[in-house]
Amino acid sequence: MLPRTIAEDDDAVVILDQTKLPREMAFVRLTTLEQAANAIRVMQVRGAPLIGATAAYGVVLALRQGVALEQALATLAATRPTAVNLRWALERMKKRLSGVPADRSIETARAEARAIAGEDVRANAAIGEHGLPLLAAMPRRPLQVMTHCNAGWLATVAHGTAIAPIYAAHAQGIAVHVWVSETRPRNQGLLTAWELAQAGIAHTLIADNAAGLLMMQGKVDCVIVGADRIAANGDTANKVGTYLKALAARAHGVPFYVAAPVSTIDFACASGGAIPIEERAAAELGFEGMPIANPAFDVTPAALITGIITEQGAFPADGLSAIRR
Amino acid sequence: MLPRTIAEDDDAVVILDQTKLPREMAFVRLTTLEQAANAIRVMQVRGAPLIGATAAYGVVLALRQGVALEQALATLAATRPTAVNLRWALERMKKRLSGVPADRSIETARAEARAIAGEDVRANAAIGEHGLPLLAAMPRRPLQVMTHCNAGWLATVAHGTAIAPIYAAHAQGIAVHVWVSETRPRNQGLLTAWELAQAGIAHTLIADNAAGLLMMQGKVDCVIVGADRIAANGDTANKVGTYLKALAARAHGVPFYVAAPVSTIDFACASGGAIPIEERAAAELGFEGMPIANPAFDVTPAALITGIITEQGAFPADGLSAIRR
Repeated sequence: MLPRTIAEDDDAVVILDQTKLPREMAFVRLTTLEQAANAIRVMQVRGAPLIGATAAYGVVLALRQGVALEQALATLAATRPTAVNLRWALERMKKRLSGVPADRSIETARAEARAIAGEDVRANAAIGEHGLPLLAAMPRRPLQVMTHCNAGWLATVAHGTAIAPIYAAHAQGIAVHVWVSETRPRNQGLLTAWELAQAGIAHTLIADNAAGLLMMQGKVDCVIVGADRIAANGDTANKVGTYLKALAARAHGVPFYVAAPVSTIDFACASGGAIPIEERAAAELGFEGMPIANPAFDVTPAALITGIITEQGAFPADGLSAIRR
Repeated sequence: MLPRTIAEDDDAVVILDQTKLPREMAFVRLTTLEQAANAIRVMQVRGAPLIGATAAYGVVLALRQGVALEQALATLAATRPTAVNLRWALERMKKRLSGVPADRSIETARAEARAIAGEDVRANAAIGEHGLPLLAAMPRRPLQVMTHCNAGWLATVAHGTAIAPIYAAHAQGIAVHVWVSETRPRNQGLLTAWELAQAGIAHTLIADNAAGLLMMQGKVDCVIVGADRIAANGDTANKVGTYLKALAARAHGVPFYVAAPVSTIDFACASGGAIPIEERAAAELGFEGMPIANPAFDVTPAALITGIITEQGAFPADGLSAIRR
């Protein structure tokens, strides 16, 4: 596995095109604002933390082109609505660049994008360490963990969020098996299966529909998912289908964890009802000639979440006010 | 729409190949036991009631070939494990043919298969009539009904089970819109969308994952699904993913109905835990090179079911003992 999903060279940002995985490892060099915005929009990069880092580097590319900062920020902000890390990264770039002389803005932006990416790597490593004891305390071996979508290495700059504790457990010699739901319509479960295979971690792909049965059959010890935006009260927007898994976990007494960096918490958003839900193109389902709705996210109420694992530790979903911002 | 999904001619049984729908309306003539068994196994015909009728006609084809009755019954019974209508139809054929002289067995079998098919048509029409007042009493127009898999005309000899009340409502001039979940991995939702389009009933296809969000958003007035086997206590096995919809419906106070003929109730099966869950081929998911599990059904506990709509009327899920057998 590569050290990071996003890297710089002298005049470009290099990403792994996730629309081509797992068939092909194709790298794409982004050199313009529009390329960076498009990469986010068409999901060549995806996952809230990686979207944030890509947007930060998109600002660097824009400044190199001579595009005004405000235009760069507006273009990147308009790419996708749900992941709060996008807005968070852009606000951080804006604040850092405020008052910086024009002849130093590119250099400053690059340093700040690099800092955002580096902090994501460290935050996710810490999420892995804070999640590890929660997994280690569950007695069955191999431990049976279910996840949804891809909140792994590929969704971040490195390590992953939901998968970080699994990587940490595997590194400690704890036998783990992961139930990977395919995550229609975009099948990000294939990305999760791919990266678990790279790491030598046992896993089984299932249709999203099978999650309830497996929990009823006692085949799941815990569920860990990532997040695209966490409201101040702990309500969590994540890839559509997450909520159904949370309901099934509650019905069967299976712990349900959300793992995300603090940058995914939107303290300005009081509850899940205020989180915008992106409606994506009908074509993503792959069928033609019929009416289709394609909401990309759903909201899991805080009451269904056992804990939220961040780089500052694991918190009860209704206890996010204890987090240092 | 054709009057029935399965028809006889002088020396064959004609079915609509549902693996080709909605792309193509292809009819297949079955003339041997093995063809009939294969049609059930590969899901050219599917849906518990239609499987039962096809198995009954399979016995006729076997007797015409000179195959022994016991062998015919065993071959057909081994095709699929979960739908109880299969076993029910075969036991009925066996009972009817017991003591019938050899020179009248083919004629007797054909009459019994025809009776099974005819009774299915009448039962489903009655299910529609008994379900209609439940739908009509819900105030929103268009009424918003969610279904899963295909429990429509295509799953039966005619009319459908879960969709029968929707057809009845539409015929009464009640505006209805149906949320159709795609039903991975076999996408039977496309069959439902196709037959609703044929009937001019408004509908929208969604990824299975979107069901919880739509209920949370208040966009669903009720859920109606079919059944592959209903235990004596009301626990219901149906296409995998049904249980997740039932959990979401309960969380949001949305009525959750099962519609099925009495032949789908297995009074010999005390509860859902005793229902065998078919594991189908990994290839159905369409991916290669990774471990895959593919359970085809799940069990919805009776406690989550608002009512079971049969040809004898709508019953509480824990009140099936009132049904005449």
